[in-house]
Amino acid sequence: MTPFRVHILGCGSALPTLRHYASSQVVERRGKLFMIDCGEGTQMQLRRSRLRFLSLNHIFISHLHGDHCFGLIGLISTFGLLGRTAPLHIYATKELQPMLDSQLDFFCRDIGYEVEFHPIDTTKNVVIYEDRSLTVETIPLQHRVPCCGFLFREKPSLPHIRREMIDFYKIPVSQINNIKKGQDWTTEEGETIPNSRLTTPADTPRSYAYCSDTKYIPTLHEIVKGVTTLYHEGTYASDRQENAGKYMHSTSADAARVAKESEVGKLIIGHFSKRYDDETVLLREAQEIFPNTQLADEMKVIDV
Amino acid sequence: MTPFRVHILGCGSALPTLRHYASSQVVERRGKLFMIDCGEGTQMQLRRSRLRFLSLNHIFISHLHGDHCFGLIGLISTFGLLGRTAPLHIYATKELQPMLDSQLDFFCRDIGYEVEFHPIDTTKNVVIYEDRSLTVETIPLQHRVPCCGFLFREKPSLPHIRREMIDFYKIPVSQINNIKKGQDWTTEEGETIPNSRLTTPADTPRSYAYCSDTKYIPTLHEIVKGVTTLYHEGTYASDRQENAGKYMHSTSADAARVAKESEVGKLIIGHFSKRYDDETVLLREAQEIFPNTQLADEMKVIDV
Repeated sequence: MTPFRVHILGCGSALPTLRHYASSQVVERRGKLFMIDCGEGTQMQLRRSRLRFLSLNHIFISHLHGDHCFGLIGLISTFGLLGRTAPLHIYATKELQPMLDSQLDFFCRDIGYEVEFHPIDTTKNVVIYEDRSLTVETIPLQHRVPCCGFLFREKPSLPHIRREMIDFYKIPVSQINNIKKGQDWTTEEGETIPNSRLTTPADTPRSYAYCSDTKYIPTLHEIVKGVTTLYHEGTYASDRQENAGKYMHSTSADAARVAKESEVGKLIIGHFSKRYDDETVLLREAQEIFPNTQLADEMKVIDV
Repeated sequence: MTPFRVHILGCGSALPTLRHYASSQVVERRGKLFMIDCGEGTQMQLRRSRLRFLSLNHIFISHLHGDHCFGLIGLISTFGLLGRTAPLHIYATKELQPMLDSQLDFFCRDIGYEVEFHPIDTTKNVVIYEDRSLTVETIPLQHRVPCCGFLFREKPSLPHIRREMIDFYKIPVSQINNIKKGQDWTTEEGETIPNSRLTTPADTPRSYAYCSDTKYIPTLHEIVKGVTTLYHEGTYASDRQENAGKYMHSTSADAARVAKESEVGKLIIGHFSKRYDDETVLLREAQEIFPNTQLADEMKVIDV
């Protein structure tokens, strides 16, 4: 199966600590890289990850709090110094554009590529990116400022050809696509070979949902139902339920509740408050509700 | 003697590497912290240094290239989250102010302290900061954009009182200041005790000059003559003399030449190009000209 992975570059919250960087992650699929959020220090973490800088063409910013976007100008500037020529697409709420433009005008006048800004509406669940095999949708979230998550869905793919059957029946290359699309094959002798003998089933499309920052949303499962992997913030443990309410964040139990209600494959929690020197308590509280939960961590690579 | 130290937070050049952060350092003197430059990641490095965030009230920005200022907004924002109330003074060329203001308006509306902006003229050698025992001067440098260094000078201090002599002659506390200022002491018996028996000489004022980024300036010694410690960029070794010219940077030999011409106490070189995996070559070339040279390094603490 095509690799479909998430590289965690940073999973801390507003205050960076010695243990966690500000939010950023890279979704890798078929050699394409998509960045979600870009807190301060992201370019250093990207370098540490050894991912190919120039395979990154799309950056999605969930919301305009510094820990999710202060690394953007440094990354853009570094791409320029590295000789980038391909356009870089930035998806964020429209308020970012004038600030970014004035920084670009001043600091990045000489860069040899275009920064294309795509304003997004965080209140709607709509497709904002599409290519041959993938779509990215916004997921409306509820935080102190306009905020949305991002849902990466593989498009349904065609069944796999069984090479040995093609060879056995000497089926010409020109017919392969038809067979992938479901056609049977009729031999010269008039025998009909059913499609099911010529193919194995298509891969189940996988999906990855990123939900940060947000308070618990009881209806979130309507959008993220059945995703293969869900990243949901779990800033606090239940000891800080009050903070979660005050700052519109989630506890790890809230994250697990969403995972359970959405019947996802697995849950990754992140965006940890600086108060936890050890996130085991967050993990335990989540696993009581949704057992297949993991903690995010810098440089962790997760197979979707 | 009062501690007077420089904490190197970052000494890389435009492109951060896995070995070096972007430029930033903290000058520590008498419990006060002064930051010079603030590249991306500075707040993380400051945390790593374990210096007290709230003792930092002044930030000097040498020039507006990203690797010297992109960390500013994150640091200001973090200070706000940490509950800072004391004003923070920022010294930089005037072009920074509108950009910073628009970021502050958007991201830092809730911070509980003032950011006071002090525009500086990089073309003049003038005092821009002064307190009871220290001055900071600008040092005009020559780079691709307006740029200056910063020269920290201790003011001459008074001689030290010899406690045992004061006790011996039963000199009242009210006279101590006069004696520090040079007065002799006349005993009840009419004997005059010369000031030199009551005091030991004042400490020699120390000074620290930060010169980055700049091409070699043959007249720089006119300003930094005799400083105790000179930090001078040495981005390249002699193999990249051409790059130094093109980008208006110095080689480590240039830095050593300035140190020698200025008869400084010691030289620290930094702002290393990413092309060097090992800066020994830079050190060697500098030491051939000025033996008392050291390499900067992240988290290194240098006694001025």
